[in-house]
This record gives sequence, C-alpha cells and structure tokens, in this order.
Amino acid sequence: MHGEIIATGTELLTGRVADLNARYAARRLHESCLNLERITFLKDAAPQLAETLLQSLGRSQFVIVTGGLGPTDDDITVAAASQAFQLRLVHDEHLLARIRRCLAERQIPWEDRYARLALVPEGAVILDPGAAACGFSLKQGQTWFFFLPGVPLEMQPLFDALVLPALLELSGCRECVEQCTLRLFGITESRLQEIIHQLAEFDQRVAVGYYPNFPETHLSLTVRGPDRQALQGLIAELVEAVRAKVGDMLLEPEAESLEELVGLKLRRHGASLAVAESCSGGLICHRLTNIPGSSDYFLGGVVTYSNHAKMDLLQVPPETIGRTGAVSADTARAMALGVQQRFHSTYGLAVTGIAGPGGGTPEKPVGTVHLALAGPCGVEARQHFFHGNREMIKILTAQTALDWLRRELQDGASLSGH
Amino acid sequence: MHGEIIATGTELLTGRVADLNARYAARRLHESCLNLERITFLKDAAPQLAETLLQSLGRSQFVIVTGGLGPTDDDITVAAASQAFQLRLVHDEHLLARIRRCLAERQIPWEDRYARLALVPEGAVILDPGAAACGFSLKQGQTWFFFLPGVPLEMQPLFDALVLPALLELSGCRECVEQCTLRLFGITESRLQEIIHQLAEFDQRVAVGYYPNFPETHLSLTVRGPDRQALQGLIAELVEAVRAKVGDMLLEPEAESLEELVGLKLRRHGASLAVAESCSGGLICHRLTNIPGSSDYFLGGVVTYSNHAKMDLLQVPPETIGRTGAVSADTARAMALGVQQRFHSTYGLAVTGIAGPGGGTPEKPVGTVHLALAGPCGVEARQHFFHGNREMIKILTAQTALDWLRRELQDGASLSGH
Repeated sequence: MHGEIIATGTELLTGRVADLNARYAARRLHESCLNLERITFLKDAAPQLAETLLQSLGRSQFVIVTGGLGPTDDDITVAAASQAFQLRLVHDEHLLARIRRCLAERQIPWEDRYARLALVPEGAVILDPGAAACGFSLKQGQTWFFFLPGVPLEMQPLFDALVLPALLELSGCRECVEQCTLRLFGITESRLQEIIHQLAEFDQRVAVGYYPNFPETHLSLTVRGPDRQALQGLIAELVEAVRAKVGDMLLEPEAESLEELVGLKLRRHGASLAVAESCSGGLICHRLTNIPGSSDYFLGGVVTYSNHAKMDLLQVPPETIGRTGAVSADTARAMALGVQQRFHSTYGLAVTGIAGPGGGTPEKPVGTVHLALAGPCGVEARQHFFHGNREMIKILTAQTALDWLRRELQDGASLSGH
Repeated sequence: MHGEIIATGTELLTGRVADLNARYAARRLHESCLNLERITFLKDAAPQLAETLLQSLGRSQFVIVTGGLGPTDDDITVAAASQAFQLRLVHDEHLLARIRRCLAERQIPWEDRYARLALVPEGAVILDPGAAACGFSLKQGQTWFFFLPGVPLEMQPLFDALVLPALLELSGCRECVEQCTLRLFGITESRLQEIIHQLAEFDQRVAVGYYPNFPETHLSLTVRGPDRQALQGLIAELVEAVRAKVGDMLLEPEAESLEELVGLKLRRHGASLAVAESCSGGLICHRLTNIPGSSDYFLGGVVTYSNHAKMDLLQVPPETIGRTGAVSADTARAMALGVQQRFHSTYGLAVTGIAGPGGGTPEKPVGTVHLALAGPCGVEARQHFFHGNREMIKILTAQTALDWLRRELQDGASLSGH
C-alpha cells in the first residue's frame, strides 16, 4: 500500500519550526512496511491544500493530512477538504458533545465559535482516541484520507492508536520489516557501491541506501518478508558478507559511535588511555568524554599547542623538536610516550600536524599529520595527508587516531602485547 | 516572486534522517522576503521527480531541487530533469575539468564512471562556488530551476553564494535587503520576544525571526528598502536598541562564534590563555582551536579526569581535593592557577563538575559545575547548576566558561588588571 503525507503550517515554510509530525509518521510507516512516496509541506492556505488533495486522490492509496483543524483563522483544512471533494460541511454530534464536555471540565463558558470545531465534511468518520484531540477519516474514490491535528503531542498518539492500525488492516499486509545501518570509515560511497554490487547475497529482496556521514560512510540495509526470524537471519548474513569484503573498515555494529566502540574495547582489555593533541586541539578528548562512564578508562589528556608545552608537559626532548620539527614522526612518538608515562596509562595516543589554513610549507603542506600510538609493547608512528578546511582536518585527524586505536584493540595487533 | 523546494532522498521518507536543506533554504528565503509556497520530499525515483518537476513548472516562478547529484545509482536527479523537460544530457567541460583536478589533488586515478558527474541537461548553467561541490540552473518556460547537492555542507554555501543572489536579481525588485543575525546567550526565546515587542524601533518594516540554537538564542532582523545605506543605518539602530535592553547577553556581532570573539579579545589585549578541563572533557580546547590562528593566544590545555592528574599536572594540593572534593570551588581555583602557571599564560580557565548520567550525590547533583578564572589580578570561582543530558551539560559548561572570559575581557572587569 502506498501513500503520502500533507503537512500544513506556514511556520514550516518559513523555516521557523522543524517538522516533527511528518517525520514521525514516516518512520512509523516505514517500520510497518507501508510505502510512503511523498511528503508535502503547504502554507495554511485553502486553495493550495484543496488542489494538492485532488492531486493526491489520483496517485495515492492513503493520504495523511496534519494540521489546520483548530479554531483560528489559519485553520483551513476542513474548508479545503470540503472544497476539493465538493462535500458540504455538517456538525458532527459526537464532536459537539465532546467539545461541550471539554469546556465544562475546564469551566470555560460555551461560545458559538466553538461549534466550528465540530464541522466536518459529510461522510467523515471521527477518529476519537479518548483522551486527546480528534481527527477524522474520509474515503474518496479508492483513496483513504486521514485528517489529524498539527500539535505533535496530539497527532502522534492519534496516529499510533487509530491511523496505523487502520492502514495495516486496509493493506492486508502481513509482512515484517528488518533494517540495519552499518558504519564504515576509510571507504568512499562509490567504492562501497561497487563492492555491494559484486555481492551475490544482495538480491532484489534487499533495499540498500548509501549515506555519506562525514567522515564516515553509512550503509542502510532493509529487508521485508513474512517471517521476522528469517529476516533477522538474512540481515546477519548480509552484514557478514559486507564484513568479509571491507574488513576493518566496517565499524563493529555493537556501538553507536567510534568513541563508544573504542571505550568498549578498552574496557574489555582492562586498558586505560591518555591523549596528547596538537592539531586536533582537544577534539579526541572531547569525543572520548562524550561517552558516559569514560572516566573508567580515559585518564586525561593534554593539548600542547606550543613547543614549550610539548617539552614541559610531555618531556619531548628539545633536540627532537629542533632536529625534526614539531610536526614529525619523532615528535609524535615522543608525545605518545610522554603522555603514556605522565598519566600512567596503558596506551598513549598522540597527534601533531598542520590544520591550516596557515602554517603550511612545501615540505609539510596543510593537512600533514603525524599520529603515534604507544602501547605495552612499544610505540609506532604514521603519517597522513588530509584534505579539507581546518574543521575537516581536525575531524579527520581525530577519527583516524581513534580508528587506529580501535584496530589496535583487535586481536593480533602489534603494540598491545597480546 | 514565489516558488517551491523539492528535496529528494529516500532517507527523508523513511524518517531516518531529518531534513536540513529545505529548512535552511526556507529560512533564508523567508529572511529575503521571497515567497516559498511548498516543500516536497520525494524518494530517489526518477519518474516521481520528473512528474513533480513538470507540475512545479506550471505553478512556480522558482524551484529549488536538492539531492541526487552524486555518483551512485540512487542519484537520479539529472536523469529526471532530462526526462521531464525532454532535454538530452551533455558532458559539461568545466565540470569535467574540475572533477579531474579534484581527483588529481587527492591522487585518485581517473575512472570512466566519474564522467557521469559531469553530465547535465542541455542548456544548464553550472553553479560553481569555487571551493565546494557544484550545482546547475536551468530555465524552462517562465520557471527557473536550481539543482543543488544534497549534502548540507555543500548545499548551504552554494545556496548562499549563488542561488539567493540570483533569485533576488530575478525577482526584479530593485529593493535591497539587509539582514543580520544577533547571537545571545543567557536568555530564552520567549523572554527575548517580550523585550523586542516593547521596542518602538521595531515597526512593520522589520521582519524578526527567533531561532533557538542551543545553547544560544539567535535573533534575525531583516529590512527592505530602496536605499542600502539607509537600511544599514536602520540595522545598526536596531542592534543598538537590542543591546541597550539585553546588555551583556548580546554576543558582540564582530565575530561568528563565541570562541572567535574570545580570540579577538585576547589578541586585542595581547593576552594568552590556558585551559584545565574536567567535566567539559576537552570541548573548550576544541572550540578555541577551531579558530584559525588560535595558536597565537591559546597556549594549550589539560583534560584532567583523574584526581592524580589534577595533582600531578596542575599542582592541585591533595589536601584541597581531600577536604572539598574534586568538584568544588577550591579545586577549580587551584586548577585555574595551576594551568596558568604551567603554561605561563595571562589567563587560566578551569572547570570541574559532574556531567552525568552517573556520579551525582544529593549534595552535588548531576549538573553541578564549578568554574574558575585566574587572571593577572587574582582568581575567582563560580558555581553553576546545569540541566540536561551529558552532552548538554558539557556544552553549557564550555559555553558558560568561554562567556565568562568574554565578559572579563571587556573594560572594567575585575581579574584583568586594567
């Protein structure tokens, strides 16, 4: 069954307010295997809404309309529906009684203008969820229309209680949906697509989506079928097929972020970490400490922008900086060892580089970054050249450093001593 | 001039991703008094997009299309435009050269599939903002179409640099638009609205927008008229009227962010800064180092999650931590003095607190934060209680600390010795 959402509200078209209703309904429809083809945001203007209602009648099996059911001048939905479908407006007795009851409970005296709230197009069926505000449904031709209030706290429970069950009933659909999102780092969207195209497991049953999510690439897999357990098995099989092809570039799905993943692994190894940052400027520490409980394994860090701080706080030998410069493999190694010793941590992670826009030279252009990781069995350094503006270079530096540690904490790594 | 936005992306119709582009464009159009009538979200499916493009041709003077310009199978926008308007696709030489240059810079070898990125409908005019990704415009009948990339970091600067100016030019109205966004910290949106309503200067010529932008509140002021100089004068007058009412809560408009503002002021005072962070976990250092050239005044920082690190790196006396705890005014003061001495900086800024979700006690609940600022004339501490989750408490802590320093660097402050 396929359909669309029409959300009315001038505030949606001035950018003042972010849409919540359409996104909520979209997610619920997707989870329930109902095919949403289109979302339209319109101003509170009856002619445009009437025109759009007529267009939707031709192309959709269900249409969910939100907003414009209130008592003020800009509430135009009932009038627009009446105009579009040439239906006269009638006072619904059930709604009228409900409004009188609500007013009485709040000790608000009746006024004639409240009667407007009980007007619906002839043939409408009231959707009354009991507690909150009502909507109504209306069948025109082969299309079911659901008219719902625009206030998210009213719309969402009404949608769940009465609209979604009605749609599932109408669709006769007994299929389930399983979905998972994989996060990858170190691979482009187009390279990932090439790989997926080669996988025999990805047949027509699998809907694949690619989402660049700088600096990561996300891959969404969706499958449908009658048997949830079989679908879960299929998803597991697909994930394994991707992992077999991309290996380390797949961030293990057990955590929602790279920093959480690093935290889980440090915890599992009973290991601790300290960080020395130059060009990433505190971003690695910031990401690590975003994880609740990170104080269990993250001991702290230093941001050493000046050479003096590198020497004073991290015991980087002045000769090293003098000989190879502050942005060099030797300095990075000395920083990693220095911070490891200073904090008495299992691992010391260090970065030094040129984030730009100034400070580049022909030998060391902007984006030159040296990373070093000190572990129980020694220290190692790696050089990278990143592209982008200052912000992107900071992000790529932090991500690459954390990703190195993530890989290091897998079995068989060289610095971890296991 | 009236128009619409068509945003493509299957992820928008599954509710997985919140729309950013359409909302951004909606706000910018509103600020420029260009009339947006409709926003449509569509799946990455060429037939639906082609149908919608044709409908928009009949009813809109401008149409902004976002998404679907990339290299993968689900990038269908160019094909849909070609289909809708019966235009053959041609390789654009300028785009082709640009793609080759980008690949060469990143040392990625050419592959034929990249040529697809240079295909545009015949008659398209490339929109090249210089640094980031390109789009194109196309006139059909009386309607101008603007096709833009879907990645917000690419779409938004392109929209500002080339689409908005073109629309203002096309709108034929010889009126100028002057717009400014004021950033405030420490005031709610509704309190700000109350204040604005009381200001006589804000008459009907001024379009006012309120945008919560956690942890700041942003206020957009837009004026239109024939004489740009008069408009600039009016904007200056409005800003002064706001400043007279809200005082220190208005972040001076000379910089785009609080960290940039702090940097400007430190530079102006010939002062330097070092930072000691506990609960903010590196976020203050990260924000400060986002500003190019920050190494001129930011000497570095330490993230001291453990008591040992507070004592070892910052010389916080063990008795202080023992007597008042790590989250206390005394510890914060000792940290600020310690980091100031360690880095030989003019100012030492320190924070210690409980970001949660764990670690709270009845006496020191989650959100308890002590800040301290050491300057040439002494050290001062302040206590705050923040509400929110871990991320929000980190953000509020960093913002409040930087904001304190901003105010301190104004004339007449107590720690700065002038």
